[in-house]
Amino acid sequence: MCELLGMSANVPTDICFSFSGLRARGGRTGPHKDGWGMAMYRDGDVWSIHDPRPSADSDMAEIISSTSLKCDIVISHIRQANVGGVCLLNTHPFSRLLWGKTWSYAHNGQLEDAMALLPVSVHHPLGSTDSERAFCWIIEQLQSRFGENEPSLEMLSGALSELALQLKARGVFNMMLSDGDKLYCFCTTKLHWITRRAPFKKATLSDEDVIIDFKEVTTDKDVVTVIATQPLTQDEKWEQMEEGELCVFDGGEVVCQIKTDP
Amino acid sequence: MCELLGMSANVPTDICFSFSGLRARGGRTGPHKDGWGMAMYRDGDVWSIHDPRPSADSDMAEIISSTSLKCDIVISHIRQANVGGVCLLNTHPFSRLLWGKTWSYAHNGQLEDAMALLPVSVHHPLGSTDSERAFCWIIEQLQSRFGENEPSLEMLSGALSELALQLKARGVFNMMLSDGDKLYCFCTTKLHWITRRAPFKKATLSDEDVIIDFKEVTTDKDVVTVIATQPLTQDEKWEQMEEGELCVFDGGEVVCQIKTDP
Repeated sequence: MCELLGMSANVPTDICFSFSGLRARGGRTGPHKDGWGMAMYRDGDVWSIHDPRPSADSDMAEIISSTSLKCDIVISHIRQANVGGVCLLNTHPFSRLLWGKTWSYAHNGQLEDAMALLPVSVHHPLGSTDSERAFCWIIEQLQSRFGENEPSLEMLSGALSELALQLKARGVFNMMLSDGDKLYCFCTTKLHWITRRAPFKKATLSDEDVIIDFKEVTTDKDVVTVIATQPLTQDEKWEQMEEGELCVFDGGEVVCQIKTDP
Repeated sequence: MCELLGMSANVPTDICFSFSGLRARGGRTGPHKDGWGMAMYRDGDVWSIHDPRPSADSDMAEIISSTSLKCDIVISHIRQANVGGVCLLNTHPFSRLLWGKTWSYAHNGQLEDAMALLPVSVHHPLGSTDSERAFCWIIEQLQSRFGENEPSLEMLSGALSELALQLKARGVFNMMLSDGDKLYCFCTTKLHWITRRAPFKKATLSDEDVIIDFKEVTTDKDVVTVIATQPLTQDEKWEQMEEGELCVFDGGEVVCQIKTDP
């Protein structure tokens, strides 16, 4: 399987602290050693890193965990390969264009018979993972439902919830998706999130001997939500998403939540 | 147009000095402000960065120009968009799988009627550039000629030279291509290269007020070749590739050269 890390913030914020915890699980405190990647959004731009080496050992991951790169939204992924070899093109997050924006996506879980997610007519997978195929399918489904016009948040969230439930029927589908404006998260088995806002406190990573005092790196107006498959800190209370729940974040706040009975 | 930067070395070597010069041209000393990217190979692994922001301003580019990440082969590109909007999926280098390896590629120039480079049956472009379409065409042509078995260096170089000449007939095709083992460079209008080896000397960038003394960062056995559309230093003699020339580098040395009368 894999692990996911996402961030949504109302001010450009770096992901160093959380990513330091996550990357340890990529070969040191966890088995997810088959590569890592990150999509970072700021002011509508998105840039990305893809590295099929273990995040715990990667010099590139070391840089990202120790250098402040300010973002509004982040999607990161560390991989434990099941479907598809370990290589650059199978490394999450995947990105595609839709409605004039670059959508990025990462997936935790495994889907049965993902090859049946057809036909793929415009948005082709480059790699051989079930994850990327599911992403292409989602993008095509959205395009086919809504055409060239982006729907409202409510309509899009409803459609994403429906599509994610169809994928969940094939196995485990925990995922994060963003267009640089919102961060969409869907939970099958495990996704946790925490919103940090004033008064800020200290936090201690679970996987590394690192403590941060958020008071020292924030202002009173900052709202930062971090989402992860497993909580990354040992002394904070993380919310657990429910099975079948879609949660949409904007500027660190929950702006839409769709729950479905399992 | 764009600018290209490549490196082939016999020991893992960082690209900081050369990339510092190149990135200045992405919005400060040059007009190539429509994004930048880099594919970095070491020991057969390849990782990549894609950033549609101007390299001169990008915090990510600042990190790459100032942090030593050791590689055997590098392909980097700064973009001045002509075909295809400024976005992540139009940012070079592009990568595809062939013969079990990840091939990365970047292009400088512009090709007439690139949409005629069809049919694209397996290797689809994700973005809308003529460059990526030409890359997909090259990969498909190689696969169709050689099937599932990688040919010898001589046969592959011959085929690449033929294909590159066909693309050159459509306009300007300066390109770099690598599988992590060799670095293939083809010149239509401008590609220059320099091989640095003992006795190492000092060098001064053309675009930045930076001097390096290579003696201090090398051993006597190191051989490092840097290739760029335009020379990056002001006090070294760069070789100029000829129109229609394919040059293949391995461990910093030229291992194959095919020249064609224009």
